[in-house]
Amino acid sequence: MTLTDPTAPDAPAATAPLVPSALARGLTVPKGFGDQSLLSPRPDAIRLLGGIPDPSALPLAELRESLGEVWDAGGAAAALQYSGSHGFEGLRGWIAEREGVNPRRILITNGGMHGLSLTVQALVERGGRVAVDNPAYPLFLRTLELVGAETLPVPVEADGLDVEHLARRLAEGERIAAVYTVPDFHNPSQGTLSAAKRAALVELAERYGFVVIADDPYRELRFAGTDQGRRVFFDSDHVVHVNTFTKTLGPGLRLGWLVLPDHLVDPFLRLRNRQDSHSSTFVQTLVEHLLVSRPGWFDTTLAAARELYRHRAELLVAELEAQLPGQLEATVPEGGFFLWPCLADDAVDAAALHARASAEGIDYQQGEFFVTGPGTDSARRLRLAYGDRTDDELRTAVERLARAFG
Amino acid sequence: MTLTDPTAPDAPAATAPLVPSALARGLTVPKGFGDQSLLSPRPDAIRLLGGIPDPSALPLAELRESLGEVWDAGGAAAALQYSGSHGFEGLRGWIAEREGVNPRRILITNGGMHGLSLTVQALVERGGRVAVDNPAYPLFLRTLELVGAETLPVPVEADGLDVEHLARRLAEGERIAAVYTVPDFHNPSQGTLSAAKRAALVELAERYGFVVIADDPYRELRFAGTDQGRRVFFDSDHVVHVNTFTKTLGPGLRLGWLVLPDHLVDPFLRLRNRQDSHSSTFVQTLVEHLLVSRPGWFDTTLAAARELYRHRAELLVAELEAQLPGQLEATVPEGGFFLWPCLADDAVDAAALHARASAEGIDYQQGEFFVTGPGTDSARRLRLAYGDRTDDELRTAVERLARAFG
Repeated sequence: MTLTDPTAPDAPAATAPLVPSALARGLTVPKGFGDQSLLSPRPDAIRLLGGIPDPSALPLAELRESLGEVWDAGGAAAALQYSGSHGFEGLRGWIAEREGVNPRRILITNGGMHGLSLTVQALVERGGRVAVDNPAYPLFLRTLELVGAETLPVPVEADGLDVEHLARRLAEGERIAAVYTVPDFHNPSQGTLSAAKRAALVELAERYGFVVIADDPYRELRFAGTDQGRRVFFDSDHVVHVNTFTKTLGPGLRLGWLVLPDHLVDPFLRLRNRQDSHSSTFVQTLVEHLLVSRPGWFDTTLAAARELYRHRAELLVAELEAQLPGQLEATVPEGGFFLWPCLADDAVDAAALHARASAEGIDYQQGEFFVTGPGTDSARRLRLAYGDRTDDELRTAVERLARAFG
Repeated sequence: MTLTDPTAPDAPAATAPLVPSALARGLTVPKGFGDQSLLSPRPDAIRLLGGIPDPSALPLAELRESLGEVWDAGGAAAALQYSGSHGFEGLRGWIAEREGVNPRRILITNGGMHGLSLTVQALVERGGRVAVDNPAYPLFLRTLELVGAETLPVPVEADGLDVEHLARRLAEGERIAAVYTVPDFHNPSQGTLSAAKRAALVELAERYGFVVIADDPYRELRFAGTDQGRRVFFDSDHVVHVNTFTKTLGPGLRLGWLVLPDHLVDPFLRLRNRQDSHSSTFVQTLVEHLLVSRPGWFDTTLAAARELYRHRAELLVAELEAQLPGQLEATVPEGGFFLWPCLADDAVDAAALHARASAEGIDYQQGEFFVTGPGTDSARRLRLAYGDRTDDELRTAVERLARAFG
């Protein structure tokens, strides 16, 4: 075929480059948290890096059984076909009953990160302002880049986000589209948002017209203390509750859910539908069958998991106290996967310590990776993740850390 | 805790509403294609609606075996853990060898729609202009709403997109960020883009600096005619090739891939990472094992699938000719799942015919759902999808359609 003559006077250059969109150009290369170049070069390094569940707490055998049962019952063909964007009705029903909400409000996602990115895109205007934990989970900050949002750091205290601080900023005229916090067993700072603060935060959201993004992946893993409640979140039309099976059934499934206010269900569905249609029918089939056909199984599994993580948390704190007396101020958390100890001696250089620890063969996240603004002692802290480390690994890791202290 | 006095003079209203973002507000409610209210009310309705593979052509038994083999080999724990955003190395390697490209250029996705939405967000500015097939796959048009793009309709001929038409528009000064087309067994119009047009389209993209989004889910399902080639797409840094296992291993897996130009791999990875981290480790594990551990199995499976779909396509055309002689101009396609017959008699009202057909118990997509601009006979056509319909269903469907013609 004949094309327009490229040598004609008004023809553009012979080859015009293809340029990514402003959105894509605005996405940063990971630095600090998640930067693989910071990992220990030692092949025997012990990683206390991520909020990773232990394989022994995950349903390896049960998923195989689940597939067998579904296949034997003639469910294979449906498991490989398209399904709805909202997610499986039976799975949403099981979750909704547990959460105590209408099943319509449950939207199945590809895990917690997916729930966060959907929420940011559905509710934050481009260039909008979002209040975030200080310190905060760094991957949420990267998700904010999808809408080019600015952040307003809000200090996190032992009992969670400093809601009074946020209230003052709002009273001074600050306006936000959303506040992001991890209410239970905060990542990285291990505390839990108190019931009083939950109520106050929701009241602020309703008064000022922003959304509370409650990122709650660890909430089922409480092994001490008192549950501070979620009803206040579910009762508000200004809260999106982000949850996932990642920490309880396995990150590799990529299966989670949102509890949405009723008025946001349709907008979220339309957005999700345009991204990737729906979560895997195959995965939903196996997980729905696992949960629905084995009444009580999930709670039995959780009970064992909590006991495992309680043991590891206590062991890690005990080893730190025994091997590094007076060097790190550590408290056993009430749940979750993280310890957030503080360097007791101001003379210790946190970055130099991390470099020496890496050389000794222990990897952890430096506190400075989580800083979102001034006024925090995070740079003097370490995030130690113990979820997927055995007793021996935890002991050896602390021995190596002690050598790094010198 | 004490909050700021809400009765203070500058306090906002007692309850401020939560408003979805402009992006979310810009997403339309499905009309026409995908509108459930248009479906036949008859419980025994036969649906010739979607590009759906037949269960008998999908690896139901093999996936169960694959899980058993992986689990027996001790791979269960890894299958439930996090994995990289790029996708499994072994799976990418298998795909890359088949495509004849460097494995780095393969990005694993949650299926074809996911690949399309990633591409649109990574390469089209907000409000940008995208040339699209006329007629076009309606769900791609909905994906364009993610960036509020405008469309430039380009006619589709028997041998695919009218590239000369596009060249003229570009020469006249029209500028676009992308062109979207389905090169093999076009959805809905069943044709295949000729080799000469592929080369000309890529040349235009390189000259004018836009991307060719080659959406190719049906390409493995050729059962007649001659392959028009993909090398020209893979050799250009102005083409994103979107593919998926949806039509060959099952939509329910939600597993696909992009073949990206090398310079776009990092931007796409950063975008994908922020959406939902990575595709299911569990699904990737089973599919990678299935493909890698059974050399030749995929091609054997495809050969049987092609034979099945060829048979159904031929049967459907034969039934139309036998039961509706002279009423519908139909041609057996060379592959894929769609027949795009045209009403021969101008006196037949296409919308009224569809209503009568629905009442008779046959569902199909009206041609008008696919129209993106003037100058097409699409409104006089029917999209009949035969992939998942048995011989008996196809015969009965045509009987019902014949009754609708009256």
